[in-house]
Amino acid sequence: MIQTFHITRPDEGLRPLLKEKIDNLTKPKGSLGRLEELAMQIGLIQQTLSPILTLPQNLLFAADHGIADEGVSVSPRAVTWQQILNFLRGGAGINFLCRQHGFTLRIVDAGVDYDLPYERGILNKKVRRGSRNFLHEAALTWEELELCIKYGAEVVKQCHEEGSNVLSFGEMGIGNTSPSSVWMHLFTGIPLELCIGAGSGLDSPGIRHKRDVLSRAVANYTGDGSSLDIIRYFGGLEMVMTVGAMLQAAELRMVILVDGFIMTNCILAASRLYPEVLDYAVFAHQGDEAGHKLLLDWLHVRPLLNLGLRLGEGSGAVCAYPLVDSAVRMLNEMDSFAHADIIKYF
Amino acid sequence: MIQTFHITRPDEGLRPLLKEKIDNLTKPKGSLGRLEELAMQIGLIQQTLSPILTLPQNLLFAADHGIADEGVSVSPRAVTWQQILNFLRGGAGINFLCRQHGFTLRIVDAGVDYDLPYERGILNKKVRRGSRNFLHEAALTWEELELCIKYGAEVVKQCHEEGSNVLSFGEMGIGNTSPSSVWMHLFTGIPLELCIGAGSGLDSPGIRHKRDVLSRAVANYTGDGSSLDIIRYFGGLEMVMTVGAMLQAAELRMVILVDGFIMTNCILAASRLYPEVLDYAVFAHQGDEAGHKLLLDWLHVRPLLNLGLRLGEGSGAVCAYPLVDSAVRMLNEMDSFAHADIIKYF
Repeated sequence: MIQTFHITRPDEGLRPLLKEKIDNLTKPKGSLGRLEELAMQIGLIQQTLSPILTLPQNLLFAADHGIADEGVSVSPRAVTWQQILNFLRGGAGINFLCRQHGFTLRIVDAGVDYDLPYERGILNKKVRRGSRNFLHEAALTWEELELCIKYGAEVVKQCHEEGSNVLSFGEMGIGNTSPSSVWMHLFTGIPLELCIGAGSGLDSPGIRHKRDVLSRAVANYTGDGSSLDIIRYFGGLEMVMTVGAMLQAAELRMVILVDGFIMTNCILAASRLYPEVLDYAVFAHQGDEAGHKLLLDWLHVRPLLNLGLRLGEGSGAVCAYPLVDSAVRMLNEMDSFAHADIIKYF
Repeated sequence: MIQTFHITRPDEGLRPLLKEKIDNLTKPKGSLGRLEELAMQIGLIQQTLSPILTLPQNLLFAADHGIADEGVSVSPRAVTWQQILNFLRGGAGINFLCRQHGFTLRIVDAGVDYDLPYERGILNKKVRRGSRNFLHEAALTWEELELCIKYGAEVVKQCHEEGSNVLSFGEMGIGNTSPSSVWMHLFTGIPLELCIGAGSGLDSPGIRHKRDVLSRAVANYTGDGSSLDIIRYFGGLEMVMTVGAMLQAAELRMVILVDGFIMTNCILAASRLYPEVLDYAVFAHQGDEAGHKLLLDWLHVRPLLNLGLRLGEGSGAVCAYPLVDSAVRMLNEMDSFAHADIIKYF
């Protein structure tokens, strides 16, 4: 039995009051652009004119992928666990970004094909040592899908209990652009070849091979085409766990920072189950992976940053956090025209 | 006698070593995108593989403008000094951004038409109570130009002596999009009407009137067409002081964070005198003012952010600072493949 969530859209009743507050801050109306939009969104999520952000955490879900056996990634599978050890040592990209912006980095083993040192702080939610190869069979069973959703929700509940109200979502999993591309294709109807890119660095022949493998995988699929079945059949363990985590975050009215291509596909999948989850999402970064811009356009969203990052790990989402923080500070720290004795000139 | 500067391009000899260091950090090559470009630029400016950023300051140059008498701005002239008092109280947009990102806010009176409370920390570099109306005469005399350049340089020297090596540049001056548009037109050759926008909120008739006024001003101009004469004839006091400040910053090998439309025109003007100044510039934000994108394209630069800000004050530049900081942290805090025992897979 797949866990259900109770997600409602933020009450719009507060919008006029938020707008009045934002428009009366000492600046030309609208002159803080995207920060004003963010302030509105977060004010509505938290249902207050003075939102606060507490204990930001970057949830980094990790797993291996059966489809990687088909040579769809330039990187060997072992890089997944090696990079996790690098996270523990503090030497990876996401580490310095988390330190810089005051994020707790929480690494979750959703399905890495390695015995990780859990005593060093990794959350052990391993469902399986890597997903199955979806070229030939379903990546996950229904029981595994159920566990992923449940564990993802558990991780977020724990963050919420610790006092977090804003989470960034990232991933580590060699091969995971492949399931992402298939989800994107099947959920949006955008032609598969436009959903496929270079991942962590494929050359042109490599991309052609990836297209061939994924086309065959989609052709081989004989499931019922329901959202849940597509999530299960092609899903990576870390991706499905992220879906559960995002849904739980929305239920708890937390701000969801969405990283790059893979995380955008996770919130896309989540929104197929509960469309309201999108109201809680802040799209942080448009990555370099081909297809990401198409997907963002399809979702009618415009991310805060466009820095050509393609690292994953939540790096784009954490990079965007200062802007989210600025939006909140704007609401709390800027003076109003009336109070500041400045001519309100528009 | 206009002050001269000794500005040289950063030595390119370090580029291969910087590239090797960046490419061997534990990430797919190039996967930190713009952060890698920034790291290269700052490494070259500081001539080190391990740059540091010290005591960031936001220099906010303020002045009034004679051209404002022609009704080219939606805001009354008094807003310049009123907003400066708001800066002192800490209630403006730039205040919370400076607090958030650890910037010292340094307000410089370059030519505000008001007796400001200098005892409250404003630097008094007032050259004149507002520039002249360049529809009818030169905005500044040669002596005023000289003073502006000199004072701008002095302010930056002081910051450098205090230990700063990164400065953001912003402005406050009702009417200052008008001189900016004229500089842009005369320095780039882009048609004047494409250089003119809404400023802090003109409607369509207002923009038409502004176009008419500025066209007549350009037609009335009978100077020698040299860069210095154009800077002098149309320049705002705070803008010319910024030109001097930017040139001094480049001479001292400091990182220059360039804010929006007006500041981009200041570095454009500075680059007409010393093209090498551009090597020290980080373009922070593409603002909403019509013409800014055209100007950035003309300069072949792509700013870090595009958030629809049009506040001025240095707000876009300070917003972009965390990315500059990230680039430096990447160089200093990320581990290398060799040291981290990870397969280097490209």
